[in-house]
Amino acid sequence: SFRKAVAIAMARLAVLLLSVGVCALIQPVRLLDNGLALTPPMGWLHWERFVCNVDCGSDPENCISEKLFMQMADVMVEEGWKEAGYEYVCIDDCWLAPSRDAQGRLQPDPKRFPSGIKQLARYIHSKGLKLGIYADVGLKTCEGYPGSYGHYDIDAKTFAEWEVDLLKYDGCNMPNWTLYAEGYINMSRALNQTGRKILYSCEWPLYESSHQKPNYTAIRQYCNQWRNFEDVFDSWRTVQQIIDLTSGIQKQIVPAAGPGGWNDPDMLVIGNFGLSKDQQQTQMAMWAIMAAPLMMSNDLRDIDPQSKELLQNRRVIAINQDPLGMQGYQTMKANSFEVWERPLSGGKMAYAVLNRREIGGPGFFPFTAAVLPSKKICFPQCNVTQVLPKYQELGVQTSDSKLTFLVNPTGTLLFTATPVTGRPSTQQDWVWPMDFEKQKKGRDPNL
Amino acid sequence: SFRKAVAIAMARLAVLLLSVGVCALIQPVRLLDNGLALTPPMGWLHWERFVCNVDCGSDPENCISEKLFMQMADVMVEEGWKEAGYEYVCIDDCWLAPSRDAQGRLQPDPKRFPSGIKQLARYIHSKGLKLGIYADVGLKTCEGYPGSYGHYDIDAKTFAEWEVDLLKYDGCNMPNWTLYAEGYINMSRALNQTGRKILYSCEWPLYESSHQKPNYTAIRQYCNQWRNFEDVFDSWRTVQQIIDLTSGIQKQIVPAAGPGGWNDPDMLVIGNFGLSKDQQQTQMAMWAIMAAPLMMSNDLRDIDPQSKELLQNRRVIAINQDPLGMQGYQTMKANSFEVWERPLSGGKMAYAVLNRREIGGPGFFPFTAAVLPSKKICFPQCNVTQVLPKYQELGVQTSDSKLTFLVNPTGTLLFTATPVTGRPSTQQDWVWPMDFEKQKKGRDPNL
Repeated sequence: SFRKAVAIAMARLAVLLLSVGVCALIQPVRLLDNGLALTPPMGWLHWERFVCNVDCGSDPENCISEKLFMQMADVMVEEGWKEAGYEYVCIDDCWLAPSRDAQGRLQPDPKRFPSGIKQLARYIHSKGLKLGIYADVGLKTCEGYPGSYGHYDIDAKTFAEWEVDLLKYDGCNMPNWTLYAEGYINMSRALNQTGRKILYSCEWPLYESSHQKPNYTAIRQYCNQWRNFEDVFDSWRTVQQIIDLTSGIQKQIVPAAGPGGWNDPDMLVIGNFGLSKDQQQTQMAMWAIMAAPLMMSNDLRDIDPQSKELLQNRRVIAINQDPLGMQGYQTMKANSFEVWERPLSGGKMAYAVLNRREIGGPGFFPFTAAVLPSKKICFPQCNVTQVLPKYQELGVQTSDSKLTFLVNPTGTLLFTATPVTGRPSTQQDWVWPMDFEKQKKGRDPNL
Repeated sequence: SFRKAVAIAMARLAVLLLSVGVCALIQPVRLLDNGLALTPPMGWLHWERFVCNVDCGSDPENCISEKLFMQMADVMVEEGWKEAGYEYVCIDDCWLAPSRDAQGRLQPDPKRFPSGIKQLARYIHSKGLKLGIYADVGLKTCEGYPGSYGHYDIDAKTFAEWEVDLLKYDGCNMPNWTLYAEGYINMSRALNQTGRKILYSCEWPLYESSHQKPNYTAIRQYCNQWRNFEDVFDSWRTVQQIIDLTSGIQKQIVPAAGPGGWNDPDMLVIGNFGLSKDQQQTQMAMWAIMAAPLMMSNDLRDIDPQSKELLQNRRVIAINQDPLGMQGYQTMKANSFEVWERPLSGGKMAYAVLNRREIGGPGFFPFTAAVLPSKKICFPQCNVTQVLPKYQELGVQTSDSKLTFLVNPTGTLLFTATPVTGRPSTQQDWVWPMDFEKQKKGRDPNL
């Protein structure tokens, strides 16, 4: 509706004021003008599950080849992934031939991609999906294939000619770290100039952050998503690490996220071998709260029904894809519990309660709206819906209601609250990460 | 058969010669003369899952109370646990009243154990199961309840009067670490003197090892099992840590294990929240290879079918309970794979192949008997049976056979090999951990 659209626009304006500052009003906010990633991109990326497996001789089903991406595309259409919103089929490192062609263009390994990338893109497009490709801003990719350094324009043009829809742009083997900003900006401009809408996935802050604080205002202007931290592995250890690093710098990175540009905590590893059922739910819930790109890395041809159901959970995806596009943040830590909140469109709020304890049985989390930093949402009343571990309508609550939730060790409770009566909740009712410390001190100690 | 019994006895003698040295022939090998734990004890222990939950008011179903142990005993009989071999129902810390009774005896918390321990033991016995209890060699238990320090005789007598069958003896709050040996020996003697067969589970080496190298020859003389490392949690991190610490000191601890006394890597946490399916299989397989006591800590009243099936897997339990009673050891590490071997009775051998990689898909492990340190077992032929991830007869193999196994990241392949023709394999064909380095150097580098 028009009213809703205006409300969202106003909210977005508030976000921009808070996030990119007054400068944003003077110069164009986004220099990468592709209109993409208005909600976090969703798709599949080969890296975590298939890494740099180039041995098609002895492992033809799992090596990095055009067949692998075609099969994933087939399954994505047949098994409900596309319908759930997963759209990009993405190649990572190790697709390239060892050298550029006679015209100086990147070329795929001829044995593993005999039809060429353009043909692969057409196949993917024929399925109603989009193709992602990988390159590196430096001299070589992380696995030693040709890098794009000094070839930004020609590589962007090549990708556009091939009708590629996304570029994951890695940052290995840069001659000097001070060149990262320039390199990432150059490729952004080169992609923009092709006229083709190519989603631009950067690793700029990841590679820069060991040398200086990344400038997220700039990064947001040039990238559709950007990695801040090291690779996720098929392990709870790395999922936890990413969650902790995110909350550790949330004041810097949360304001940078919004329609068109997102913090990227890396792939979903649900459906593989290293996460328990509860840990899988935690990754899914937290990637939704963090407004993260949902790029699965798993074998969709052979995935257990439980993982599939979780990855296709419409209610969790709806939180991730909320059109307001505000990233959530951690607002509380107590007794091994962590509470994260994400403001959603329509004055709703999503909450994730993580039980970080790795011993004992399920932990009691006493929910009273009054203890939540965004407590006004339930004043006078709110409607509470549990989304994970399973869907359950919990009905109308007031700020005095007491609900007791049980949260499994390493698991997460995900729920939403919607204001039901009285004045609609506004941006001012929400506690921003940057104000959280202040608010905490000011709050009634009895709460 | 008599032949088999003689063979086993001879093999055991070889173990004793290797493990406790010549002294063993001069003085009695075991001073704790209860005839128990001829194979690793099996049962259930409350700690990891129920910790020190004493809040029966708000959590009556999960608090440490007589009801909890009675319910577990009921389920153990009803749901096939007893039949699979799980026998001991064990209380851990937090069962005690805050002080001793007027006669100086330990007493249970009267609200949570209103019928008393003797009554509870009788209930457990009526189910054909055994009751384990917990105390501490120091001034207080780890959670601050009365310790046994200076009360060894009266406490042993109390436990015997209550008809308790197992004592887990913790080591918190000792006035001085030099007192551990004396304390653990005193309780061993006190238990022995009661005349009741009480399985004695020590934490002596764990508490001593930060100060000096534990004397495993002595420990084996006084304890039926002993903890070497810190507590397991509901986490892959701690399971891995225990596996790594075990291989790190295997030359010290493996020879100490055998009928009557076992290294205790702590509880099985399968059926809880923190381990993936593959990680659960790894714990089960490795606890079998390590000849570990199988003490589950989980909620048997509410356990998923997959975990239950794994914990009750007869073939894995048979490896754990092998009558020869030799603990397995790590014999190989290459390309993120680890190979562990355990000699079994009848000249058989059990193998565990762990994939420690936490990225990518299932890893190829090329099995040729020739690469195994105990390769002679397949010379000229052996019969190979896969036990985990699922049971499969792999038929007769020779030392030249090539089998390719796929092992999931964080998962384990468990199989056995039985010599089928030619001379029976003997102790001399096996590579002992203490000889492993030597053997490795001497072996054909092409293998």
